[in-house]
Amino acid sequence: MAQKPSIPKGTRDFNPEQVAKRNYIFDTIRGAFETYGFQPIETPSFENSDTLMGKYGEEGDRLIFKILNSGDYLAKANEKAYSEKDSNKLTSSISEKALRYDLTVPFARYVVQHQNEIEFPFKRYQIQPVWRADRPQKGRFREFFQCDADVVGSKSLWQEVEFIQLYDAVFTALKLGGITIKINNRKILSGIAEVIGASDKLIDFTVALDKLDKIGEEKVKEEMLGKGISEEGISKLQPLFTLSGSFESQIHSLESILNASEEGKKGIEELAFINKAIKELGLQTAALQLDVTLARGLNYYTGAIFEVSAPEKVKMGSIGGGGRYDDLTGIFGMKNISGVGISFGLDRIYLVIEELGLFPETVTKNIEVLFINFGDDEALFSLKAIKQLRLQGINAELYPDAAKMKKQMNHANKREIPFVVLVGDEEMKSNTFTLKNMNSGEQFKLSLQELINHIK
Amino acid sequence: MAQKPSIPKGTRDFNPEQVAKRNYIFDTIRGAFETYGFQPIETPSFENSDTLMGKYGEEGDRLIFKILNSGDYLAKANEKAYSEKDSNKLTSSISEKALRYDLTVPFARYVVQHQNEIEFPFKRYQIQPVWRADRPQKGRFREFFQCDADVVGSKSLWQEVEFIQLYDAVFTALKLGGITIKINNRKILSGIAEVIGASDKLIDFTVALDKLDKIGEEKVKEEMLGKGISEEGISKLQPLFTLSGSFESQIHSLESILNASEEGKKGIEELAFINKAIKELGLQTAALQLDVTLARGLNYYTGAIFEVSAPEKVKMGSIGGGGRYDDLTGIFGMKNISGVGISFGLDRIYLVIEELGLFPETVTKNIEVLFINFGDDEALFSLKAIKQLRLQGINAELYPDAAKMKKQMNHANKREIPFVVLVGDEEMKSNTFTLKNMNSGEQFKLSLQELINHIK
Repeated sequence: MAQKPSIPKGTRDFNPEQVAKRNYIFDTIRGAFETYGFQPIETPSFENSDTLMGKYGEEGDRLIFKILNSGDYLAKANEKAYSEKDSNKLTSSISEKALRYDLTVPFARYVVQHQNEIEFPFKRYQIQPVWRADRPQKGRFREFFQCDADVVGSKSLWQEVEFIQLYDAVFTALKLGGITIKINNRKILSGIAEVIGASDKLIDFTVALDKLDKIGEEKVKEEMLGKGISEEGISKLQPLFTLSGSFESQIHSLESILNASEEGKKGIEELAFINKAIKELGLQTAALQLDVTLARGLNYYTGAIFEVSAPEKVKMGSIGGGGRYDDLTGIFGMKNISGVGISFGLDRIYLVIEELGLFPETVTKNIEVLFINFGDDEALFSLKAIKQLRLQGINAELYPDAAKMKKQMNHANKREIPFVVLVGDEEMKSNTFTLKNMNSGEQFKLSLQELINHIK
Repeated sequence: MAQKPSIPKGTRDFNPEQVAKRNYIFDTIRGAFETYGFQPIETPSFENSDTLMGKYGEEGDRLIFKILNSGDYLAKANEKAYSEKDSNKLTSSISEKALRYDLTVPFARYVVQHQNEIEFPFKRYQIQPVWRADRPQKGRFREFFQCDADVVGSKSLWQEVEFIQLYDAVFTALKLGGITIKINNRKILSGIAEVIGASDKLIDFTVALDKLDKIGEEKVKEEMLGKGISEEGISKLQPLFTLSGSFESQIHSLESILNASEEGKKGIEELAFINKAIKELGLQTAALQLDVTLARGLNYYTGAIFEVSAPEKVKMGSIGGGGRYDDLTGIFGMKNISGVGISFGLDRIYLVIEELGLFPETVTKNIEVLFINFGDDEALFSLKAIKQLRLQGINAELYPDAAKMKKQMNHANKREIPFVVLVGDEEMKSNTFTLKNMNSGEQFKLSLQELINHIK
């Protein structure tokens, strides 16, 4: 193979620095999940195709990576599809497994499959990669990690309260102050649709409303008209477009708009409960904001809807989201299990932290000290010391070859190793170590214990 | 879907306890890798097929999971293979990507692709899943993790010395005393084959010798005869079958056997160097043993060969292995890069630790305290305390619903939560907390600070 090798488009290699930075984010999220009582599960990278297919809509089905059956897979190929050369129809007969598309459906499958072993309410978290055959573009990959936490088996609104605290805890720990947690409620959206006589057009209505930020009030109204929502109905929406002020004052306005809708009033009640609790409990660095235009994953959510925005100074889409769903496991035949969950967008969080220069300097866990190799006797003497350093938790290594000193020092410089130890005849005789600080250039002659203390 | 969902054969769900135990092993290995100066990289789950195919022999090619191309994949299908319904020949035209089969080939690809960014010698570790379409059986899975550490760009034998120390460090940290690190050298095997006039039958010879433990001396000799190795040659092997005693005395015997082979003598020299260094440096709990029958992956290794056996009281195959290879990156056109590496077998290490009851009790990182929920006022009061506990790093949670007390206490029992806190009217008035130790049944009335101190 003369050609330089490459990787599939939309996938990535991660070098040591990138892995270390990603692990810093994972570890922070994982730590918060555990402090909040969530427990980890892991599911296989591929599922039976019928577990995944049909769960994400037609577009989703197309984006799922299918795994070719092993062996003589054509022997079982659907004959009609084969003779018609119909890729779509042939697939299910030559591919029985597929890479997971998200963590939610595998989680639902897990809950149903293991329902007799699970103690409900079940608070689980899951940090694993997912795969989508999406067109790769900036910030969108074909393999990426999702970090999800969900509770199933309880309708308590205290969960929503805790998830807001959890978002606050994670982003505070990441030193990413100034994020906004936007919240809405599916029942508010249903209530508004009801009030304006467009209950049957809930999706069209919310899709249009969701664009308010981007295209402005007039265009949103035009789109609604175009979708068959009446002028009269739209006029009732007017207070929505000017909704502003505190959470409480927005709630107050919504109360007058939604007075005629039982479902809408229930949504307001839920939002008010959550807001009051968060007010009492306080957030460390995040802000909670009511956003009635928020509608992500509407088909799916039945109560609270969350979305997290990066600090204003950074141009970035949402860095997290979630909400309550009342029938997650229904697709696998287990009814009436309510759930609520949130997700963290690792790749975007990484970009935000990078842009703001907020990765701690210590994150890369580089080795702390390199011993220069002057020959076998010196190397053995050095390895005895290195053994002690390592037992003290100091990351240390010996340059493997007795190469020229300059080459070894260059190696230390390129890898940004802070300390170098030189062991020659004299040091071996006196059982000492010459330590060089690579930043300051200072040199010290130290005993082993002094060396350990100095590096620590 | 009425049927209870399931997962593909050979794959596994991991529940919270299993994830925690696996992470304990991963974290221990990762910690040792970093202390020894190895840096993490990660590569994509799938590679371009031509990166993987042809690298693992015919059997390996069959066991690689192929990913079906997206969209109308049949449009580009090889017409001849399609009309002949030849699965084997069709595959490359409808599948361009495949799941990685091990971490070694992706690592070689990484080194070649990123050679200009890498500072050599490059010490990398990689802990990621791999996939094989193997027939599932006890302890063999279609998705499993590999934990590899390799150094490329140096021929120094100090690396071999350090890898032996690294094995010792990891298994000592896992409290898995009594493992044996077996070592051999490809050059010894080549030397023996040369001496007995069977250089052209090196593979047959080593495959037979490798079975000595299992089938005994006579059958090994029979197999060699059957493969065309002469009686005279086999008679020269006699001292090999009775090789025993210390590393040094075995080396001594080998010296007389291999006196006529330059390559064999070089192998002895290498082994003696490594053994002397390890003697000087000392191992914590492992034993180093010379095993001239060890031949794993012979096609591949060019110098040292390692294999780790579990403590004798456990029946288990090897729990780790590795060796030196002199042309890893040659398959991608980058010549003369020597490497040496070792691998840890996570699943088997897990089984050994489980069987010996060596997982620390604290490994599951369960929550430490559950607050019983008596209603919204009590819940809010509790969450204020929980917030403080969590800031102190205590894993704490509120039962989400104001369910019957008995149900909530049962929940605490089933999850084996050590402490429960009860907050009622009285506690709220006096700003105290009733803590119940679920093991002893004792109850204490405590202030928030006392509560924190008690749980910590």
